[in-house]
Amino acid sequence: MDIAHELSVKQEQASIAEFFEKNKHLLGFDNPVRALVTSVKEALDNSLDACEEASILPDIRIEISPSGKDEYRIVVEDNGPGIVEENISRVFGRLLFGSRFHAHRQSRGQQGIGISAVLLYSQITTGRRMNVISKTTEGEAFSINMSMDIKKNSANIHNRKKVKSEKKSGTSIEVYVKGSYTLGKYSILSYIRNSAVVNPHASITFVDPNGEVHTFERCSTVPPPVTTEIKPHPYGIEVGELLSMFQKSRNKTVSEVLTYELYGITNRILNKLCSVTEIPADTPCSKIKRKDAEKMTRELREIAIRLPSSNCLSPIGEELIKKGMNREFESKFTVTYTGKPGIYHGEPYIVEVGLLYGVKGSSDEVDILRFANRTPLMYQAGSGAIISAVKSVDWRSAGFDQRGGKGIPYGPGIILVHVASTNIPYTSESKDAIAAVPEITDDIIKGLIYCRNKLRTYVTKKSSVEKLKEKYEIAEIIPEMAAKSASLVSDIVPDSSLTVSRILNAIVVEKSIKTEENEKFIVITIKNVSPKKQKFRLYSESAGINFGADEKGIVNGAKIVWDVDIEPASVERYTYHNVPEGEGNINVYIKGLPVDMVIGADVI
Amino acid sequence: MDIAHELSVKQEQASIAEFFEKNKHLLGFDNPVRALVTSVKEALDNSLDACEEASILPDIRIEISPSGKDEYRIVVEDNGPGIVEENISRVFGRLLFGSRFHAHRQSRGQQGIGISAVLLYSQITTGRRMNVISKTTEGEAFSINMSMDIKKNSANIHNRKKVKSEKKSGTSIEVYVKGSYTLGKYSILSYIRNSAVVNPHASITFVDPNGEVHTFERCSTVPPPVTTEIKPHPYGIEVGELLSMFQKSRNKTVSEVLTYELYGITNRILNKLCSVTEIPADTPCSKIKRKDAEKMTRELREIAIRLPSSNCLSPIGEELIKKGMNREFESKFTVTYTGKPGIYHGEPYIVEVGLLYGVKGSSDEVDILRFANRTPLMYQAGSGAIISAVKSVDWRSAGFDQRGGKGIPYGPGIILVHVASTNIPYTSESKDAIAAVPEITDDIIKGLIYCRNKLRTYVTKKSSVEKLKEKYEIAEIIPEMAAKSASLVSDIVPDSSLTVSRILNAIVVEKSIKTEENEKFIVITIKNVSPKKQKFRLYSESAGINFGADEKGIVNGAKIVWDVDIEPASVERYTYHNVPEGEGNINVYIKGLPVDMVIGADVI
Repeated sequence: MDIAHELSVKQEQASIAEFFEKNKHLLGFDNPVRALVTSVKEALDNSLDACEEASILPDIRIEISPSGKDEYRIVVEDNGPGIVEENISRVFGRLLFGSRFHAHRQSRGQQGIGISAVLLYSQITTGRRMNVISKTTEGEAFSINMSMDIKKNSANIHNRKKVKSEKKSGTSIEVYVKGSYTLGKYSILSYIRNSAVVNPHASITFVDPNGEVHTFERCSTVPPPVTTEIKPHPYGIEVGELLSMFQKSRNKTVSEVLTYELYGITNRILNKLCSVTEIPADTPCSKIKRKDAEKMTRELREIAIRLPSSNCLSPIGEELIKKGMNREFESKFTVTYTGKPGIYHGEPYIVEVGLLYGVKGSSDEVDILRFANRTPLMYQAGSGAIISAVKSVDWRSAGFDQRGGKGIPYGPGIILVHVASTNIPYTSESKDAIAAVPEITDDIIKGLIYCRNKLRTYVTKKSSVEKLKEKYEIAEIIPEMAAKSASLVSDIVPDSSLTVSRILNAIVVEKSIKTEENEKFIVITIKNVSPKKQKFRLYSESAGINFGADEKGIVNGAKIVWDVDIEPASVERYTYHNVPEGEGNINVYIKGLPVDMVIGADVI
Repeated sequence: MDIAHELSVKQEQASIAEFFEKNKHLLGFDNPVRALVTSVKEALDNSLDACEEASILPDIRIEISPSGKDEYRIVVEDNGPGIVEENISRVFGRLLFGSRFHAHRQSRGQQGIGISAVLLYSQITTGRRMNVISKTTEGEAFSINMSMDIKKNSANIHNRKKVKSEKKSGTSIEVYVKGSYTLGKYSILSYIRNSAVVNPHASITFVDPNGEVHTFERCSTVPPPVTTEIKPHPYGIEVGELLSMFQKSRNKTVSEVLTYELYGITNRILNKLCSVTEIPADTPCSKIKRKDAEKMTRELREIAIRLPSSNCLSPIGEELIKKGMNREFESKFTVTYTGKPGIYHGEPYIVEVGLLYGVKGSSDEVDILRFANRTPLMYQAGSGAIISAVKSVDWRSAGFDQRGGKGIPYGPGIILVHVASTNIPYTSESKDAIAAVPEITDDIIKGLIYCRNKLRTYVTKKSSVEKLKEKYEIAEIIPEMAAKSASLVSDIVPDSSLTVSRILNAIVVEKSIKTEENEKFIVITIKNVSPKKQKFRLYSESAGINFGADEKGIVNGAKIVWDVDIEPASVERYTYHNVPEGEGNINVYIKGLPVDMVIGADVI
C-alpha cells in the first residue's frame, strides 16, 4: 500500500460540533476567565435578541454561583417570547441551528452557534447537562434536560416535563461551566455594564458568585425599533452567487429573479441592465450561463441602485452615545458622528463614533470602546477594523501624543465605535473583533476624522475660550468693585453692567435643576453679557426621553428648540418640565453665535 | 400564532458550507488582495504537508495568471504522494474532511477546511469549477472537474477521466478566484518567501501574473523528520471528555481505557490514581459516573506524568532560525531560544524565538515575524499570543524605545517567534494568529525575556567591545609605524607584536571563503593578539548542512568543534571542506573566553 492509500484510510468527515470541540478557543473559550464571560455573554445576547424580536422590554436576571472546584452554575432568565417546545433542544443542542442565519437584518446572534457552544463547552468541561425551561404566550411551560451528541451535532433529551409557570412567556437556562470569576476590565460585570450602556431599554439584574446583587435599571422605556428583513443588495452579489440564484430559483425568468429576489431592482434598472447585457428580461433562468451572470454582476455594480433604508439597522443614536459615555466618564468635550448607511458584500451597515476628550487622570493610551450590533466587544482588543482605523488616523493635531502620527494615540481621550449591520463580519466565531472589510474600515476612519477635526477646533479654540472665562471671572468683580468704590463717596451705585458687557462680549449659559411639588425641572439661564442685543437658537437633545418645555419652547420628540432674542445686559430663563428621576444630564447647544462668544454650552 | 411560533417557522439547520459561505472572511477571504494570498497559501500548505507525510523533498510550482477582470487562475502542482481517486472530490469538495482532524501530530493543515474553502470561494466569486489531477505511486492519474454543493457540503463531479502523467506521484490543482495581485509585505511573493525561510528543504517555483519566474531553491536536502502521532496527554483532559471516553470506548475497564487511550499512564501512575480516587482499576467502564470522572481528572493533574517526547513536533531549530534571519536581514547581533516542550489542553507544543539587533535603517516599530507549524502568519498582525507577549515585555534595558515599558518596542530589531504544536489554537479558521492560551503565551514571554537579556548583555558590553575594536584598529598601525620609524634610523625592524598584544589583549576571528580545484572551503583565521597563550573552544554550526573539516576539527553532524591552544602573537587557521555552492554563512562561536576579549565571533 503506498502512502496515498495509507493516508486515505485516515481521511474522514468531522461534524461541525467535533470541529468546535477541537477548536473551542474559536468560540471564546480559550481560558477559564473568558469561558465564564463568554457563557454569560451568549445567554444574555440571546435573551436581548429574543425580546427585541417580540418588542418586549427585557427583564433579565443572571445568577452565577460556585458549583465545585473551578466550576460555576449559570442561570439566565428572561421575559422573552419563549421557544416552542419541539425547537428547544435544537436551538440549544445543535450548532448552526436558528432563525437568524439566512435573515438579512440586524441582530446580536447571527450564526446559530453561541448558546449551543455554551452547552458544548459545559459538557466537555463538566460532563453535566443543560436545563432549559421555556414558556410561550400560547403554550405551557416545558422543562427540558439535555446534552449534546457531538458526533451527530444534535441534542440528547434526558428528561422533558411540563412545569408550572406564573410568567406570560420567557426562557430560563441553567448550565454549568468550568471557569474562573474575576473583576476588572474583562469581567462579567464589565460586560453586563457595557451591554446596559448600549441597551438602555433593558433591565438587568446580576447576582454574582458572592451573592451580591448588581442592578442595571432601564433608563428608556422605548424598545429599539424592530428591524426589518431585507433582500440582498445587488452591489454585493458575486458571479457565482447570482448564477446559483438562477439555477435554484422557483421563479422562472430573469426579470422575476432579479426583481423579486434582489433589493432595489426597479423596472427602469431592469430594462437598463437587460439592454446593456443583451439578455432579454424574459429569458428563462435555465438558459443563463456563467458568462451571462458575469456580465450582469459587472453591470449591476455600474448602475445607481438606491441604498437600503436604515430600518433593517438599529443604530444607537448620537444622543444615546453621548449620554452613555457621559454617564460613565467625566470629560470636557464630547463629539459624536453617525455615518450614512453603506453596503459591503450586499450587507447594509452603519458606523457610529463618539469621542470624549479631557477625561481625568488619563495620559496613557486612549481607551477604545468597541461595539457591534449593540454588543460590547471585549477580547482581541488589538485587532480588527476599529483598532486599525484608530491607528491609521493622525491624532496629533487634536491634542494627542502619537509616535509618527500612527498607532494608538496617548492622551486623555475615550473613543467609542459602534458598527451595526445585517451581518457583522467578525474575525472569529467568538465575535471579538470586526474584520477589516475595506468599506467598513473606511467609514470608521471617516467618522474618526470627523470627530478629530471637531476636537481640533475645540482644542485650538479652547485657549481663546479659556481667556474668555478669565475675562468673565474678572468682569464679575467689576460691579462689586464699582459698588464698593461708590459707597466710599456716595450711596448711588453706578450701573456698571454695560462696561462689563463691553469687556466680556459673551453669552453665558447655566444649567440648574429644581424640584417643585414633586415635579422635576431643568432651568437653562441665559445671560447676555455683551453690549448688543443677541439672536440665536438654543437647542437641546435628551437622549430619547421626552420632557415637556415652557411655552416658548418648540418640542419635537426628544428635541426642544428655543429661539432666543435677548437684550444686552439681561437674563432669560428656559425650562424643561416633567424630567424623570435620575435624568438631567442633557446636552445644550447654541446655533448662530461664534464659538468664542459662548460660555457653558457647545456651539454647533 | 404568537411570536414564538412565528419564529419557530424560520428556525432551521445550516450546513457548515453555508456557514462559511456567509462568513467567508473567517477563512481569510475578506478582501481581494488577501483572497488571492489565502488561496495560494492553502494550496501551498497542503502540498508541503503531503510531501512531509511521505518524506518527499517537495518540488512545488505555483502559477498565477489573469483570467478576467479582477479574476485570476491559480495552478499549484506538487510531487507529493497524490490522493486516491475516490477521495479527491471529498478532500477538495467538502469542508471538515481530511486525515489530520483527529490526529495528534504537527501539520500545517489541521482542520480540513483550507483547500475546500478555496473551492467554495472560487465558486461564489467566479461561478467556475476546480480541476484536480492526482496520481499515486501505485495508481493511474485522474483528472476530476468539480464544484461544491453548498447546501449539502459535498462535491458535484462534472467530469472524471484518466489522464497520462510522467510523474511518479503528485497532485495539481487549478482554480479561479476573484482577487487582486499586489507586491509588498502582505503579498503572495512575501508569503512564499517566508515559507521558504522556514522550509529550507522545499524547492518552490512561482510564476507571477506578469510571467516573471521566482525560484526558491532548497538549501537543505534533509526533509524535516516525519512527526509521529501521540495519544492525548492526561494533563489536558476535561471531566466531560474523560466521561465520554469511558462511555464510548471499546475497551472494557478503567485500566484499559486509561493505559491504552491516554499518553504516559504507567502501571505505577494507574495504581496511584486508583488508590487515591478509590476506583478499582478493573471497574467496568459502564459503572463510571460523572463524579468518578471528576475525581480522576482532578487527580491526574496532581500526578507527575512525563511530557510527550518532542517527536510529535517539528521545530525549525535554532541554527536554521539564525540562518533564515541572517539571510534576509543584515544585523549586528543575533540570539535564538528554544523552549522545552509543553502541554496545553493535552496538546504538546514548543516555542522558538529569534532576535536580531542592529538592523540597518530601522528606528520604527520592531518587525515581528510570526510562524506556526512552519507556516508564516501574515494577517491580524495586531493580535494573538505572540503580539501580546512582545507587548508585555519591558524592552527598554536592551536598547529599545518603549513607552512605559509596555507595547510594541521601537528600534533596530526583528523578533521571530515560531510555535509548533499538534494543534495550534488559532484565533480563527483563517489561521492568522495564535490564541492567547496562557501556557503558550507564558512560554513565548520566557523566550523573549531570554533573548532580551542576552541582548542587554550585548548592548551593555558593546561599548567595551567597541573600545576594543578601536584599540585594535590603532594597534594595527603600530607595527607599520614601528617599521617606518625604524627605517629612518636603521634597517632592523623591531618586533612590536608583543607591545601591540599588551595594548590589545584580544583574540581576533576572521572568516574567509576560498575555492580550490572546484572545492569550496571556509577558512577561520584566529589571531592571538594578547600577551599570553590562550586556550578555548572554537565552535560552529552550519544549519543542518554537513561540511567536512580539517584534521584538527571534530565533526559531529552539522557541528564542528576545534579545541584551540594558541601561542601569544601568533596565528592559526581552521578549515571547512566540501562547502556546497551558495553556503558559507555559518556562525562561529567561542567558548571559554570573556566577551570583551573576542573580536569577530559570538562568545557563548
